[in-house]
Amino acid sequence: MSASTSTPSFPHVGVHDSTGTAVPAPAAPVVPSRGRFRPLGIGEVVITGGPWAARQSTNAAATLAHVEHWLEREGWLGNFDATARGELASTRAGREFSDSEVYKLLEAMAWEHGRSGDPELDARIRAITARVAAAQNADGYLSTAFGRPGSARRWSDLEWGHELYCLGHLFQAGVARARTAGHDQLLTVCTRAADLVCEVFGPDGIPSVCGHPEIEPALVELYRVTGRRRYLEQAALFLERRGHHVLGEIEFGRSYFQDDQPIREATVLRGHAVRAMYLSSGAVDLAVETGDEELLAAVVGQWEATVARRTYLTGGMGSRHQDEAFGEDFVLPPDRAYSETCAGVGSVQLAWRLLLAQGDPRYADLLERTLYNVVDTGPSRSGTAFFYTNTLHQRVLGTVPDQDSAVPRAASSLRAPWFAVSCCPTNVARTFASLQTLVATADQDGVQVHQYAPSTITTDLPAGRLALRVRTAYPASGRVEVVVDEAPDAAVALSLRVPSWAHGATLTEGGVTRPVEPGTATATRVLVPGEVLVLDLPVTPRFTAADPRVDAVRGTLAVERGPQVLCVESVDLPGEQHVDDLVLDPDRAPEDVEDGVLVHGWLHRQADPAWPYGAPPGPDRPGEPVTAVLHPYADWANRGPSTMRVFLRVPGPGSR
Amino acid sequence: MSASTSTPSFPHVGVHDSTGTAVPAPAAPVVPSRGRFRPLGIGEVVITGGPWAARQSTNAAATLAHVEHWLEREGWLGNFDATARGELASTRAGREFSDSEVYKLLEAMAWEHGRSGDPELDARIRAITARVAAAQNADGYLSTAFGRPGSARRWSDLEWGHELYCLGHLFQAGVARARTAGHDQLLTVCTRAADLVCEVFGPDGIPSVCGHPEIEPALVELYRVTGRRRYLEQAALFLERRGHHVLGEIEFGRSYFQDDQPIREATVLRGHAVRAMYLSSGAVDLAVETGDEELLAAVVGQWEATVARRTYLTGGMGSRHQDEAFGEDFVLPPDRAYSETCAGVGSVQLAWRLLLAQGDPRYADLLERTLYNVVDTGPSRSGTAFFYTNTLHQRVLGTVPDQDSAVPRAASSLRAPWFAVSCCPTNVARTFASLQTLVATADQDGVQVHQYAPSTITTDLPAGRLALRVRTAYPASGRVEVVVDEAPDAAVALSLRVPSWAHGATLTEGGVTRPVEPGTATATRVLVPGEVLVLDLPVTPRFTAADPRVDAVRGTLAVERGPQVLCVESVDLPGEQHVDDLVLDPDRAPEDVEDGVLVHGWLHRQADPAWPYGAPPGPDRPGEPVTAVLHPYADWANRGPSTMRVFLRVPGPGSR
Repeated sequence: MSASTSTPSFPHVGVHDSTGTAVPAPAAPVVPSRGRFRPLGIGEVVITGGPWAARQSTNAAATLAHVEHWLEREGWLGNFDATARGELASTRAGREFSDSEVYKLLEAMAWEHGRSGDPELDARIRAITARVAAAQNADGYLSTAFGRPGSARRWSDLEWGHELYCLGHLFQAGVARARTAGHDQLLTVCTRAADLVCEVFGPDGIPSVCGHPEIEPALVELYRVTGRRRYLEQAALFLERRGHHVLGEIEFGRSYFQDDQPIREATVLRGHAVRAMYLSSGAVDLAVETGDEELLAAVVGQWEATVARRTYLTGGMGSRHQDEAFGEDFVLPPDRAYSETCAGVGSVQLAWRLLLAQGDPRYADLLERTLYNVVDTGPSRSGTAFFYTNTLHQRVLGTVPDQDSAVPRAASSLRAPWFAVSCCPTNVARTFASLQTLVATADQDGVQVHQYAPSTITTDLPAGRLALRVRTAYPASGRVEVVVDEAPDAAVALSLRVPSWAHGATLTEGGVTRPVEPGTATATRVLVPGEVLVLDLPVTPRFTAADPRVDAVRGTLAVERGPQVLCVESVDLPGEQHVDDLVLDPDRAPEDVEDGVLVHGWLHRQADPAWPYGAPPGPDRPGEPVTAVLHPYADWANRGPSTMRVFLRVPGPGSR
Repeated sequence: MSASTSTPSFPHVGVHDSTGTAVPAPAAPVVPSRGRFRPLGIGEVVITGGPWAARQSTNAAATLAHVEHWLEREGWLGNFDATARGELASTRAGREFSDSEVYKLLEAMAWEHGRSGDPELDARIRAITARVAAAQNADGYLSTAFGRPGSARRWSDLEWGHELYCLGHLFQAGVARARTAGHDQLLTVCTRAADLVCEVFGPDGIPSVCGHPEIEPALVELYRVTGRRRYLEQAALFLERRGHHVLGEIEFGRSYFQDDQPIREATVLRGHAVRAMYLSSGAVDLAVETGDEELLAAVVGQWEATVARRTYLTGGMGSRHQDEAFGEDFVLPPDRAYSETCAGVGSVQLAWRLLLAQGDPRYADLLERTLYNVVDTGPSRSGTAFFYTNTLHQRVLGTVPDQDSAVPRAASSLRAPWFAVSCCPTNVARTFASLQTLVATADQDGVQVHQYAPSTITTDLPAGRLALRVRTAYPASGRVEVVVDEAPDAAVALSLRVPSWAHGATLTEGGVTRPVEPGTATATRVLVPGEVLVLDLPVTPRFTAADPRVDAVRGTLAVERGPQVLCVESVDLPGEQHVDDLVLDPDRAPEDVEDGVLVHGWLHRQADPAWPYGAPPGPDRPGEPVTAVLHPYADWANRGPSTMRVFLRVPGPGSR
């Protein structure tokens, strides 16, 4: 790897093949220089249809413009212009982290431009970049919230100021632009700012970190793009400093920003969920680049404990409203679940990094669950309204949010166009814009398909080019056809993930059908162009129960179908009765019907006692028989105010 | 009633008998001029033994000095001295509401001095009063947080400033002092401040309210003591203004300080629980003084809905950490229950006012439940350490709080000596100091005993003096003996509350035992000195289940005994196993044993799956048979760090 350099354009630090030769880096959000799998870039995977293609189209056609509109309207983009004019003090708009939304929009636009090549989008990127660049100080400093006449001085509030956090998002935008369009003005802005950070926070600089992790993975990625090792070293400094009480005491405790214990010593993720995800992602990036197996193992252990004890059925992370934080083990209440959309995005980023590093399909399992049930729940189908939090139990009819103003982040049961703290829309936008890069990976021997969507996958293996075409109506159907369009003459390994819930799956190749277990099904042989491999995943709807230690959902069952968690909404109950009156019949399996999944049960209208506690009642009264059609949780709240449940009560100690 | 007057001493506005003649006001915290029952003052009821006498002794001997020590040590008392010296700006200590803790200490000391007559305590009250008085401005303004050089100007932050809130606590202290020691300097400080408030916030003044209700009941009480009707009118102004969005928008929404809808229109208590309790108490006070049945009915309806759907088994109110607020209906998670000690104190105040106004024993029921299970849980037995929040499920071993510094309010599972926000210790202190006034009431016809403790009750009825002596080991025993020491020659009505849980209670009088139903058992006849009435309440331990809509405790039972909620702590399980591993046998009734209540069950050590959701398991494995001894919830966390549960899981869908 090249050392720090002052030349204006940088060698790509790409993936090294077995001979040590650098190959061109793929255009993807995470490009480690080593690991179990290498990512495939935007040029290698194209999603050609199905729900994920629809999400990418809507993102391009509606969300990017919607976000840009609100950034202008709220003055968060204008902050940069005012800074350039030296007029910021009197006019600054938004919270201390508003710059980051501009950077996340730039990142989303860069990935989308990389996908579509749209010249108009390219021009918009250049225009915003120019406004950002104009606000940068001569020494590289860049913030519209600090360090100006009338504002607080630079680095004076590391706990809450988000200066380094914002720069992290800037770097991720610059990385996305560099990987999709080459070195341009945005990367120059990034390296000037990053060089300043390395001076100010270097070994002899301010011995502290940012209250919100984000610059850690961003610096590693910037190192990967530029080859400047000082960025990697600075990321290491930030990661190793945190946990030693380098930040001040805050009301939520130091665990809030993971400054309570060193990352190598922690055993579970804790504190603010988004912060935990970004920090852990940075740690994986660092561990991979430096070959630090101890650090990687520490993060893996934390991830395992978090998934086993602190994660919602949806993949949602962070149950607490007060501090947007993880609760204690098994404290996962469905009502008032926080499950921030951004924590879902962060969890996808972490799981993806772990998958690249270690190859274990469990990472792709959680990633899929989180994509389908958290990230995809965030935005409306129109791509212009968003959930910030994702409750799993809506007890009261929500109010329709004001469509013409930014709303508090967790104010309603319906999606809102913008928030006073509006991290989620831009986070979803950058995820959808680069969604195809999560579909498949490669290694020396072949290709691994992790996510199933109509798509083409084309990559050059040491043995030659492998081109695949995936045909599927997944997740509506469990049938996945992989058509081999081009293949080397030599044997390659084609691996298909079998999700953990897919008991009874089969793989058909060469006319032979064989059962495959959850994990990975691999065909290792010479593939013949024109042949079709068929993976059949059982997406029959199923009941799911929680560990008894998840007290909040004891005596309930959820219904899942394939990777999707389902829910019932009051609009789907007779007379729009309250979902809390529905009691599920656990002895009648859920059934696929035309417009959803049918369950049987009873409606139990509860009496209203003056005091809700008393002698244990007898068994439930039978109640009025009822059927209800469940729909994917991600689609809820698209038909007006409704009550909603994911976990449905089963008969037990009865009504009173 | 007398109009506003400038004479330095005031006629007591006491209870009016049927002829309209004022009788001397009792020395008690709430003295309405009308209502179903009249309160009995400190001179009329004496608690002579049992747990409540112990609480009063400890409060007098330890808590008052402990609080005074911390108020000095933290500088919250010194703020008054610095204000008097004009040196406040550079030295002010504590939060914006720290003055209120000084006032609540004064109130507690006043009630305790009224009880004991201790001259040394009288001197301490006078000394603190002098320091407070010295900080008062010439125009009556009094605050150490606002309106001084270097601090924000007066009334400039009604949402969060707590200026009027602090004055409310000042007035309650002044009222306590006036009722127990007559008119002294403290009352003069109060009326000077109250007159200023009436000028500044009167009909033509600032048309707003305080973000934290408290001055409303305090002004009505000050009116009752002074006869100055303008205080009553000002309380009415404050109460009627709130709810019309007179305060600014805050992150938690206007319901936080009950400014979302007018009190006459609300149907349930909502927002910050302590604020809701104080506001409702003020509304009852106003409604009673003005004969406003509509307002009273509105508060009663809100109370009923809150008790039916938003109250913990303990009587605890406010489930949410984020804003110390009520959750939606039936959102009552035992883990991370907030259930602030002060909300319990406020609930006692509200229930007591409603009992005086309407006489319904359900108010005394909730009051008893809250006293035994929230207020009594707050302080340690030593009276020098406190809970701010009262969780009903402790999942992890807590840490021992620093005994030498103020701690965050909800930081540990163990009681702490002081908090940065330290409202609870002083609130408990004033409640315990006046506890005897909650025992009994009177009306024209007789006496009503609401709470059972060894005590003497002596009051003058129209028919003559009635003197009773209560002998009991309640709540350890359910036997309550009421000895008639003195009685009029005419018939009187002696009413004894039969708690709602006391099915199978009996009353024995004149050698005859008869069953009595929950509610009230009354003997209406000529009582004979020397006779003993015996109320026998069944305090057999019992299982209690929650309404199925309290999702968080589905599939569990709690154990209650008399008015006490019990709990299990890990220190009482074999090998100090985790309480979450205990499964209760619901078919074996809980039994009284020497040191608590014995339950039978099994220990189920849970497996630790990588993902805590899966196919519904079969019935619970039998597990290892075990017995556990439960203790009153109020006594928990007195034996070091422990896990704890109130609601115990019963067999159901099993372990995996």
